[in-house]
Amino acid sequence: MALAQCSIRVYYEDTDLAGVVYYANYLKFFERVRTEWLREIGLENLKLLQEEKVVFVVTECNVKYLQAAKMDDMLIATVESYQSSKVRASLEQRILRNGTPICTATVSFACIDVVTAIPVRLPIQLRSKQLPLVNAL
Amino acid sequence: MALAQCSIRVYYEDTDLAGVVYYANYLKFFERVRTEWLREIGLENLKLLQEEKVVFVVTECNVKYLQAAKMDDMLIATVESYQSSKVRASLEQRILRNGTPICTATVSFACIDVVTAIPVRLPIQLRSKQLPLVNAL
Amino acid sequence: MALAQCSIRVYYEDTDLAGVVYYANYLKFFERVRTEWLREIGLENLKLLQEEKVVFVVTECNVKYLQAAKMDDMLIATVESYQSSKVRASLEQRILRNGTPICTATVSFACIDVVTAIPVRLPIQLRSKQLPLVNAL
Amino acid sequence: MALAQCSIRVYYEDTDLAGVVYYANYLKFFERVRTEWLREIGLENLKLLQEEKVVFVVTECNVKYLQAAKMDDMLIATVESYQSSKVRASLEQRILRNGTPICTATVSFACIDVVTAIPVRLPIQLRSKQLPLVNAL
Repeated sequence: MALAQCSIRVYYEDTDLAGVVYYANYLKFFERVRTEWLREIGLENLKLLQEEKVVFVVTECNVKYLQAAKMDDMLIATVESYQSSKVRASLEQRILRNGTPICTATVSFACIDVVTAIPVRLPIQLRSKQLPLVNAL
Repeated sequence: MALAQCSIRVYYEDTDLAGVVYYANYLKFFERVRTEWLREIGLENLKLLQEEKVVFVVTECNVKYLQAAKMDDMLIATVESYQSSKVRASLEQRILRNGTPICTATVSFACIDVVTAIPVRLPIQLRSKQLPLVNAL
Repeated sequence: MALAQCSIRVYYEDTDLAGVVYYANYLKFFERVRTEWLREIGLENLKLLQEEKVVFVVTECNVKYLQAAKMDDMLIATVESYQSSKVRASLEQRILRNGTPICTATVSFACIDVVTAIPVRLPIQLRSKQLPLVNAL
Repeated sequence: MALAQCSIRVYYEDTDLAGVVYYANYLKFFERVRTEWLREIGLENLKLLQEEKVVFVVTECNVKYLQAAKMDDMLIATVESYQSSKVRASLEQRILRNGTPICTATVSFACIDVVTAIPVRLPIQLRSKQLPLVNAL
């Protein structure tokens, strides 16, 4: 079972000349559900930035494109699993259409001080989530 | 003669399902040449934000789409003319292909304090540019 | 009462350096709710393109930016009213936050043959909707 | 020496709330220089689509984010090296700032028939480029 998921309707803005979702836009979809997942465990990007002067930064992103998403598709974006050290976290994510994965990603991220750009410890909500990485992909 | 202009190549990222440039993306093109124009008269967005805590905000934008730009097109984006009061400026802009305007815009903008969101006077470089508005469209 | 509306969560992808939604991205929000409205009256962009070889093209777009939308905001995008001739339609649209309009737009569009780029009659579903334009803005 | 390179100025549209280039937008930069590289070896996306009904599709994309690109940065995007089989190609790409790589990617792509979505042979121009993969990253 996914840690978080959200529905994503494909609109004109997401498509390109080839009639399918532009390859960079799947990263937007992956980021939307990460944001919802963070919100669910009590982390809001804007508050983190304004109150603690930290931001999440993606350090690595490995994406597999299996099938093309199309205009009007209703997709599900998920966070499948999560693993972290004190300063870095790694997520397995998927985009599904009718239950079938059409795009998968492994996304690593860290937290940095927004002024100095120096890595800082992950927020406690993330460190307490040290679940074993179940690679469901 | 335009106050500023820059070349814009159309890439996959700019197109949509209909095979042409997505209508919101022309606003990116207009903003690129505005940025270059501001740079030429000594105004850099990042410095303004970091040193003076002010940002430019578009308050109104009227766009006419005359012809569709296509993948691989080489376009010219321009700032045609400029008019300002102490707190608000208005630009006439164009996108041209082979010398023919394919999209035109009137863009009004102001300057606000990034913390309070209160409008502030335009930078002196813009106030000194009170040229008559030659509507070249 | 709006003809159509949909909820829009603001994500990282929508924001810019100034910490607010980038001005071109409101046009994406306006287009999302137009797509949902078209779907409700029986018009799907993809089917129109594939089966009838026609696409909707925006011919003019006048946008007023009243307040800035921010990261994590939950917005409502609406189609407020609609007016058409045989070949052109005009919509009044809004983006609201907590019931307050923060961005409004008048959007005109036409239908063109995707091969010849020649304007064609609007689909019958749109021509039958010749409601008086109630400018609710 | 890179197989292809192009200059990329960072504009407002590329940045996000954190004040840096949004992570999905580096994929746009990588795609711009791939397009220029394809053009140099005689392949135009639009012609391929219209005349041969084939499109390039990215099948995998592995991105490392080393440093953040900022507003007003002047970057260089490159195609460093290239390797292919009959149906699949793999590129090493970089984004550099002042000669220093700030983002690197390995991008695999294939060619598909735009109607059937079935993979087809890569164009002859790409098959004749079977250079050894020099991983310069």
